[in-house]
Amino acid sequence: MMWIYLNDRFVEAKEAVVSVFDHGFLYGDGVYETLRAYTGRIFMLLQHLARLRRSAALIGLELPIPEKDWPALLQEAIARNSLSDAYVRITVSRGEGDIGLDPRLCPRPTIVIIAKPFRPHPPELFKKGVTLALVAVRRNHPAALSPQIKSLNFLNNILAKQEAVRRGAFDGLMLHVDGHIAECTTSNLFFVRDGTLCTPSLDCGILDGITREVVLTLAREAGIPVAEGRYAPQALLQAEECFLTNTSMEIMPVLAIEGTELGRSCPGPLTARLRELFRELSADS
Amino acid sequence: MMWIYLNDRFVEAKEAVVSVFDHGFLYGDGVYETLRAYTGRIFMLLQHLARLRRSAALIGLELPIPEKDWPALLQEAIARNSLSDAYVRITVSRGEGDIGLDPRLCPRPTIVIIAKPFRPHPPELFKKGVTLALVAVRRNHPAALSPQIKSLNFLNNILAKQEAVRRGAFDGLMLHVDGHIAECTTSNLFFVRDGTLCTPSLDCGILDGITREVVLTLAREAGIPVAEGRYAPQALLQAEECFLTNTSMEIMPVLAIEGTELGRSCPGPLTARLRELFRELSADS
Repeated sequence: MMWIYLNDRFVEAKEAVVSVFDHGFLYGDGVYETLRAYTGRIFMLLQHLARLRRSAALIGLELPIPEKDWPALLQEAIARNSLSDAYVRITVSRGEGDIGLDPRLCPRPTIVIIAKPFRPHPPELFKKGVTLALVAVRRNHPAALSPQIKSLNFLNNILAKQEAVRRGAFDGLMLHVDGHIAECTTSNLFFVRDGTLCTPSLDCGILDGITREVVLTLAREAGIPVAEGRYAPQALLQAEECFLTNTSMEIMPVLAIEGTELGRSCPGPLTARLRELFRELSADS
Repeated sequence: MMWIYLNDRFVEAKEAVVSVFDHGFLYGDGVYETLRAYTGRIFMLLQHLARLRRSAALIGLELPIPEKDWPALLQEAIARNSLSDAYVRITVSRGEGDIGLDPRLCPRPTIVIIAKPFRPHPPELFKKGVTLALVAVRRNHPAALSPQIKSLNFLNNILAKQEAVRRGAFDGLMLHVDGHIAECTTSNLFFVRDGTLCTPSLDCGILDGITREVVLTLAREAGIPVAEGRYAPQALLQAEECFLTNTSMEIMPVLAIEGTELGRSCPGPLTARLRELFRELSADS
C-alpha cells in the first residue's frame, strides 16, 4: 500500500485526490520539487527545500508548512512507505478555488508528498550513453515564464519530449528562443571541449539544477577547468564528451546528438571520473 | 447542488476529484475551453468544439468523446444544473499515470465539464471601461508554447494578472517577447485609430479568440475598416478607442492604459456600436 501526504495527513493512494477546482489542475498553478533518498537519507535536502521556497515566492505562493517541519515530514513519507532508496515528489498547488486566474480565489494551497521506490534508469544507458535530438520546441522564454520557477506548467517540456521520442531519441535538447543551448526536458547539460567542462550559464534560461551545482563544485574541487556560458549547438557537436544531470539520473553520459557520436569513447574519461566522485558524495551524505 | 461531468457520468461537486497522479495536476498537461450559453443555448458551440479538438491535437491528445456526442453532453450539463445563462468549462487532461513527462504513461484522458450560472462583470465596468497595465511579463513565445493551444499551462497569464492587480489595474496587457502587442491575460485586444478597427494579427503570438473572430466579422459586415497587424505599444496609447473581447466579457471597453485615458469618451462610438451588434447576434443565436 502506498501512503501519500495530502494537506494535513497521510492517505492511501486511491484517496489522494484533489478537486477539479484545484488551480493546480485548472491552470497548472503551483510548484514542485523532486528529491532522492539514498538508504533512507534525502540528498541535498536543504537545497531542494530552499528552491521550493524560491519557486513558490516567484509565483506569490506562501508555503503553509513551516520551514522547520519539512525534513521530518519528508522522512515520515519515506518511512511510512518502508522505503530506503526513494524518489520523493513535493507538489504545492494554489489550492481549490472558483474558476478565474486570480490566486486570491484560493484560500489554502494544496500540499502533496509522494514517496515511491527509486527505480534507476537501466544500467545499459549509463554504460552506452543516451541519444539526444535537437528539438524545434524552444525552452520557455525567461521573460514569459522563468525556467528557474520549478512549476507545474510543463507542456513546453512535454512537447519537446514528444518530439524527441517521435524522432527515436532518449530526450530532446532545447534551445533558448535566441538559439543558444538551454537544457533537456528534465535535465541540465554539460560537455567537454579541450579538457574544459562547459555548461550553459543560468542566464541561458535554464533551471539551476541542484545536481548541476553539485557537479560544478565537484569539478572545481578536482581541479577540472570549468566554464559557464552561452553556447551554439555547433560547439556541442564538436564536444569530446557530453552528459546530463538531474536528481534521478545523477550523471548520464550522452552518446550522440542528432546522430553525431561525440568523442572517442562513451562515457568519456571526465564523465566517468565525475560520476565516481558523485557516487562517493551521495554515499557519504 | 452542482453536478459536474467527470469522465463518464455526472457527480456532485464534492465528488468531482482527480488523482494527484493526474498529469493535469502534475504537469498542467491538458487543454480546455470555456463556453457561454444564452438562455440555454451555447453560443458558437461548433467553433469552441473545433478549437478544443485543435488544442488537443497540438499536444497529441485524442479526445475520448466522439465529436457528435459533445453538443448533447454540454446541453445535459446545463440542464442538470437548471441553468439558463451559463458558463461552461470543458477540461481535458492527459489523465492519471505514473510520474514522468511521457504522455504514454496515461492510458485514458480525464474529462471534466463544469456548468455554473453565468455571472456577468459589474455593469459599471461596461459603462466606465476598465484599466490596463502594460506588464513586464511577456506572453509565451509561440516557439516554446503556442498561445493558440488553449492549455492548462496558465502561469504565464497568472503572473501577468498578479502584476496588473499589484499595480491597481483591471488586467495586464502582455507584449510578445519581440515587443509588439499580444493580448491580455484572458482576452484579445482591439483599438481604433483614424476610424480603423485594429487588432494584433494571429502571428503576434495570441489565442485566436472566438469572440475576436465574431467581432472582426461583425465589423466587416458593418463596413467598418479593419486591420490585423503588429503594433507597438505606442500606437495603442494614441488610440481613439480600445476594448477587450472574450467569451464571458463579450466586448469590454478600455478606459485607460498605464494611466493614459484613450479617446474623448468611453465607451467610444465604435465600441458601443459593435457591442450592440454583438448583443443582437448572441440573442438571435
